[in-house]
Amino acid sequence: MTTNDTDAPSRRQRREGHRAPRARQAPVAARQSPWGQLRNPYRPFEILSADAIEAIHAASLHVLETTGISVQSDSVRALCVEKGAEPMADGVRVRFDRALVETAIATAPSSFTIATRNPARTVRVGDGHLVFSTVSGPPNCSDLAGGRRPGSMKDYEDFLRLGQLFNVVHVIGGYPVEPLDVPVPVRHLVGLQSMVTLTDKAPRIYCHNLQRTRDALEIIRIAAGRKPGEIEREPISFAIINTNSPLQLDKAMVEGIVEMARMNQPTVITPFTLAGAMAPVTLIGALAQQNAEALAGIAISQFARPGAPVVYGAFTTNVNMKSGAPAFGTPEYAKAALVSGQLARRYGLPFRSSNINTSNAPDAQAAYESMMATWSAITGGVNFLHQATGWLEGGLTASFEKFVMDVEMLQLFASFLRPEPVDAGSLALDAIAEVGPGGHFFATSHTLERYETAFYAPLLSDWRNFDAWAADGARDATQRAAAIAQQALSEYEQPQLDEAAAEEIAAFVARRTQEGGAPVN
Amino acid sequence: MTTNDTDAPSRRQRREGHRAPRARQAPVAARQSPWGQLRNPYRPFEILSADAIEAIHAASLHVLETTGISVQSDSVRALCVEKGAEPMADGVRVRFDRALVETAIATAPSSFTIATRNPARTVRVGDGHLVFSTVSGPPNCSDLAGGRRPGSMKDYEDFLRLGQLFNVVHVIGGYPVEPLDVPVPVRHLVGLQSMVTLTDKAPRIYCHNLQRTRDALEIIRIAAGRKPGEIEREPISFAIINTNSPLQLDKAMVEGIVEMARMNQPTVITPFTLAGAMAPVTLIGALAQQNAEALAGIAISQFARPGAPVVYGAFTTNVNMKSGAPAFGTPEYAKAALVSGQLARRYGLPFRSSNINTSNAPDAQAAYESMMATWSAITGGVNFLHQATGWLEGGLTASFEKFVMDVEMLQLFASFLRPEPVDAGSLALDAIAEVGPGGHFFATSHTLERYETAFYAPLLSDWRNFDAWAADGARDATQRAAAIAQQALSEYEQPQLDEAAAEEIAAFVARRTQEGGAPVN
Repeated sequence: MTTNDTDAPSRRQRREGHRAPRARQAPVAARQSPWGQLRNPYRPFEILSADAIEAIHAASLHVLETTGISVQSDSVRALCVEKGAEPMADGVRVRFDRALVETAIATAPSSFTIATRNPARTVRVGDGHLVFSTVSGPPNCSDLAGGRRPGSMKDYEDFLRLGQLFNVVHVIGGYPVEPLDVPVPVRHLVGLQSMVTLTDKAPRIYCHNLQRTRDALEIIRIAAGRKPGEIEREPISFAIINTNSPLQLDKAMVEGIVEMARMNQPTVITPFTLAGAMAPVTLIGALAQQNAEALAGIAISQFARPGAPVVYGAFTTNVNMKSGAPAFGTPEYAKAALVSGQLARRYGLPFRSSNINTSNAPDAQAAYESMMATWSAITGGVNFLHQATGWLEGGLTASFEKFVMDVEMLQLFASFLRPEPVDAGSLALDAIAEVGPGGHFFATSHTLERYETAFYAPLLSDWRNFDAWAADGARDATQRAAAIAQQALSEYEQPQLDEAAAEEIAAFVARRTQEGGAPVN
Repeated sequence: MTTNDTDAPSRRQRREGHRAPRARQAPVAARQSPWGQLRNPYRPFEILSADAIEAIHAASLHVLETTGISVQSDSVRALCVEKGAEPMADGVRVRFDRALVETAIATAPSSFTIATRNPARTVRVGDGHLVFSTVSGPPNCSDLAGGRRPGSMKDYEDFLRLGQLFNVVHVIGGYPVEPLDVPVPVRHLVGLQSMVTLTDKAPRIYCHNLQRTRDALEIIRIAAGRKPGEIEREPISFAIINTNSPLQLDKAMVEGIVEMARMNQPTVITPFTLAGAMAPVTLIGALAQQNAEALAGIAISQFARPGAPVVYGAFTTNVNMKSGAPAFGTPEYAKAALVSGQLARRYGLPFRSSNINTSNAPDAQAAYESMMATWSAITGGVNFLHQATGWLEGGLTASFEKFVMDVEMLQLFASFLRPEPVDAGSLALDAIAEVGPGGHFFATSHTLERYETAFYAPLLSDWRNFDAWAADGARDATQRAAAIAQQALSEYEQPQLDEAAAEEIAAFVARRTQEGGAPVN
């Protein structure tokens, strides 16, 4: 369109930018991408050969049959031995021979469904589907207005409202921020009550001890409208299980695997294998250890209930060489995620990865580190993207602005995952012939028929020209994200929850609170 | 390492973050990634089937043999007809039948080398190699201190200094910002003199008219230490050629293709096919038109000199549906880049893509839009990444902060492209056995032997913990980038240029200036 090869638009076109309405004035709920589960139509990007994947597989089995793994629960260790694992001299470790592991993991399903009280919120995990979950676990939260602060019930509930409102969030990943103003013994009761009241998306269970797990399951069962005996019928929740690297499955986590499996509820087995600290400094060694720990947890889930739904979780990253502290969203993390996807597919299991970064502020660093993590997850065939919205500061802070930035980035990927059909209509030969050299396509019927839904329309990105943007306050993406988060909270609508169920939950929470809640670990 | 599944590091580890030195105090030149050309070890990510690529190929050949393309130079049109193209009734268009196109493009090399006076700066284009070039063409530039302003010779030269200092920049993409304070007739003379004096990296030539192209080649020839007859021996420069979409090759650009080809200098043939404006609203249709325009330009380069070095350039993106203005770094752009890589490989040609965004500020939007563009380019097998450092505001502004952000993002990719060997050393089975359950790897010989070079060390990203970062001013990535740009300029060292060559260039520029420079288009 111009002989000046700046790759830049003409002045005429830029002026038209002025005509852009102030998009953020429309309701956030109306401007966002529609609800719907995503499917990945592309063949995964793979960086290792099949032989290299087999070498990692073989190395991890070698670890499990020689060094073994520490199973820090008498009951679960007994279960392992009953199924054929070999107890070791220290009384805590067990060895799994490779046949035992391969037989056990073979019974795990390649995909499963998590049902919800609102059937529209049901999600499929695996089989080419994608699930995005909210941030979970930070002790702090932050926004531009209030700064960084310890998590409270108010902030906890506001993040749940954002998780409910934004369509690109498919499930609630846990406590988006820890409500530190609620005593620990009853936090899971109050927290789950809020979660199932303020959202109708699949909830996550914490397995810090058996009592909390059972309390949480009971609240979720009532909210889901299931009778006491019905929980085992299908998944209505999920848990994230971290191993205690290197090579330890501690009591709470491993008993959580067994309890969830027995209830036919999914676990996402996720070693946090930090290369250079709790795992070898070589990425491939860290991945071999990750694989050993993940396979052990997955095998135990199948010992407890063959066919129990389980996800291959990956969280291998590297330390900051200057401090020994973890770094997130690094090139090493991206490579580890891609290899992890290859390993998960090697076992025919759903693959979990994460959207993470190391930045202390919701800024450009947070964005490009998140994109390093998320691009590798998406092109690597991720099925369950955890920590997908709001994670900041290496997971120590949940950020309202980052939550909105992540919604935008995930919406970009939702659009990226829309396949491009190649047919007579899309090839547009008639339109090209009709317009001819030097014309334009604005007014062709081919354009007019498709224009309104042709392209992604952003929520956070500001595409107006510089003058229009400057005249409107020259707000950067972080400032605009803060405004969108506030607007979204003002638009939030609480989902339907059966009144009897709500009362039953309230009564249960009251009773369990009177009983003192659950023990503190 | 913790039973609390926040995926977050322990407090102990975070505290160690305090020990991180204030990285920016070390010289930028010492902290950046080392100089060296990158190779891509991975199989490209592909989103279309081979059949779909053939359908786009066939559609583009159909366009060239029916609608034809407007060749707005009498001499080049005559060349096309001489080689077998069919002149059309309007006296400007020519038709290429598919055999003519396929025969012509078959003589283009799959890779080539651009030589430089400093042999260390020689770059290979194609054959799995990657080249990153600076931003080029914006009329404005900006930094936090001075704001947005029209380009000047001072800013022009400062951007050249950054392009010279940063190792991840392999070639100079053109004028990083237009020096608008230099009269147009002599701008190319003064501009090229600065470019070859302040940098020793391969320079880009603008083909706005034949005289400018020849003046530029002469300055580059002298700087490269070549005798007048020697230019044709090997590439020592490159040009970016934009078609004037739809289906027009204007006089300046098409005569530039021929002139560069005759001198055995590479051209990057890059249609700016804007879906919904100068190209069909369907991405696939825009790509069919891009392919037709690119193949026509490539064929003409081979008409002029069979075997002339040429790159398949792609710049298909979509309009902002609200304004009709272009949007950059969109999901549609990412898909188009991936398909363009497939098309370039279909023809055995080097593939050019770009690092672009629509943001008005060097903020999170600029970062995630750039990452959409760059991830698709890298995983799509890009060989020449143009506009790789500094592009902002849809190409209307060159940003000093964005330049540094892009350096960091490109360094992340340089590390991402380092393959992970899978062998006994990397699998680390001995170290895993040595440490055992519950230990750590900090002190193992396996770690100590590899620790210092194991992981990417960032230039811009701040990985210190929150308290250390806050105590140091809580500067976001944009503020840190501004400081790094200033520090880099203070460290810049001018490269060697033979004194006689410098004098000869000065004399040439003085003579051509006296003659009035080159005509204005």
